Amino acid sequence: MNISYESVAVSSRIRLARNFQDCPFPDRLLLSPHGRERASEIVRTINAELNALEEFDLYDVGTLTEERAAYLVERNLISRDLVRHSDISAALITPDESISVMINEEDHIREQYFTRGYDLKKAYERITGIDDVISESIPFAFDREFGYLTACPTNLGTGLRASVMMFLPAISRRGLMKRVVPELNRLGLTVRGASGEGSGAEGDLFQISNEVTLGFSETEILSAVEKAVKLIVQFELRERENMKTEGGLSLRDRVLRAYGVLSNCCLLGIKEFMELTADFKLGILFGYLGTDRTEEEILGELDDHIVAMRPANIDHLNGHVLTETERSVYRAEQSNKVMRRMEIVV
Amino acid sequence: MNISYESVAVSSRIRLARNFQDCPFPDRLLLSPHGRERASEIVRTINAELNALEEFDLYDVGTLTEERAAYLVERNLISRDLVRHSDISAALITPDESISVMINEEDHIREQYFTRGYDLKKAYERITGIDDVISESIPFAFDREFGYLTACPTNLGTGLRASVMMFLPAISRRGLMKRVVPELNRLGLTVRGASGEGSGAEGDLFQISNEVTLGFSETEILSAVEKAVKLIVQFELRERENMKTEGGLSLRDRVLRAYGVLSNCCLLGIKEFMELTADFKLGILFGYLGTDRTEEEILGELDDHIVAMRPANIDHLNGHVLTETERSVYRAEQSNKVMRRMEIVV
Repeated sequence: MNISYESVAVSSRIRLARNFQDCPFPDRLLLSPHGRERASEIVRTINAELNALEEFDLYDVGTLTEERAAYLVERNLISRDLVRHSDISAALITPDESISVMINEEDHIREQYFTRGYDLKKAYERITGIDDVISESIPFAFDREFGYLTACPTNLGTGLRASVMMFLPAISRRGLMKRVVPELNRLGLTVRGASGEGSGAEGDLFQISNEVTLGFSETEILSAVEKAVKLIVQFELRERENMKTEGGLSLRDRVLRAYGVLSNCCLLGIKEFMELTADFKLGILFGYLGTDRTEEEILGELDDHIVAMRPANIDHLNGHVLTETERSVYRAEQSNKVMRRMEIVV
Repeated sequence: MNISYESVAVSSRIRLARNFQDCPFPDRLLLSPHGRERASEIVRTINAELNALEEFDLYDVGTLTEERAAYLVERNLISRDLVRHSDISAALITPDESISVMINEEDHIREQYFTRGYDLKKAYERITGIDDVISESIPFAFDREFGYLTACPTNLGTGLRASVMMFLPAISRRGLMKRVVPELNRLGLTVRGASGEGSGAEGDLFQISNEVTLGFSETEILSAVEKAVKLIVQFELRERENMKTEGGLSLRDRVLRAYGVLSNCCLLGIKEFMELTADFKLGILFGYLGTDRTEEEILGELDDHIVAMRPANIDHLNGHVLTETERSVYRAEQSNKVMRRMEIVV
């Protein structure tokens, strides 16, 4: 995978939904006899099995503070649904945050692997390894005709969701998403804003994932996503060339101003922050902003920074809940610092 | 005069309007017998007299290119009225641009002295010296009752206009000009935007000058202007304290962003340029922007830069007429450079 590809396909995520045989779905688990005991047992068993494999941190959702939970939700390590089930739910997360296993979310198990850049194949292999370990200790509910059984029919079958986060400034700013979206839908795929369902596209980030889980094999789903990602990458790269040619001086001006503001501001709301970082990225990719550091380093550091500057992440870094203004100040200060580390030579 | 005073009273200008005895006003000069010859003779005589005193460059307005004339108008060295009379008008300007003597403008003679900072007294002394030299070679039209006779009755009497350019960000942004203006009018003074009559206030710059020239002595006029300037300086300085206290973080943010944009943009229109430089000045005055250079140096260099970035000045510096976009590019490039020379330590 080369940098121009990864400048579009920013990160990849595979998620499997699984449920155990002869056990009510989480929503009904507490209504069944010994439901709470069964929930604890599931957590205990999976914790033991996974920690035998590699290091996992166990998060008992019921004992998490609201702030800590919000932090983990922002980093996509747990879901709001998991927090909703906090009386029986838990999460097992590797220290590098690449693997997250949620227990008693909407389904008994949601296994997720996240990797920077575009690598669904590696993601699928890694999460399958985890999946095998769990299924050996507690058998999954599986139907010959339907495949894996899930709480919601949209996940039935493979229980697989493959998603790729894509940076699409050229396609979106040139008003071309309306051509991309129906094309993806035709392939059984869907597009969301960066923060998931219902969210707008902040910082020109879009999440592409499969809608359909039933009636296709895992391989078929992965290759459909792969095919779509490839087409979008090519489309975006071509449109970036057009954008650069047509944008000319105004685009360069916008990008350099974004750098100037990120380097010097002392109040920075999240919406403007996302816009400015998207412009800054374009500045690096288009060579408007020179630096001796590599594009990989720059874009990687920037992606970390983008996640770290979300509200609950800022609170976490500060050790307490901040006001909106305090977060703006912190976001500005940290952005000033990150810009200095970019070693831009104008 | 100290820096805080001069951070408000930016520059001072004295202008005297004079006409010669037994010679029709410039508007009618060409209609009179031998009018053109008399005009030439006036120019020749004054050129000789003044150059005997110190070095003056002679500008024959009729042979000036449109661009060169626009450049001199922007620098307040000649007036649009002088250009309108180009068939008989001329200007004598010292190389340091402090003294300008316009010949055959609305009046036969308009003598002007310009100095940075606040020093009307020095300005008046200098221009009186010039005035004496001219009046010794060609006697002025003077009436016992009315004083100096002028083409327009608003200049009758002393023919004196004293004006002070004032940087009033606190008064104007806090909506207090509406309190200042009637007060000045009551004292026989008037307020204009930086570019003279009819112009809006760009970059929070306002020109205070006397309206009345008749019925008061030169000393009375100067002391009225002096008194007004003193009051406005005190008012502005007090309001700057309030502005700083109340503006808090948003003001600091605005100022630092202005610095960021001036340092990095690559397209910069004149209106935004004036706003950003005003914000940058505030950053220096309020200590938001640290530098090892002195405030005097910084503000002086900035004031030169502001004049140099006006359209005809940019054309002049480039040696030819530029398009609006080319000027924006040049203004941005030069502003980037000036900001680097400011040696700001953030």
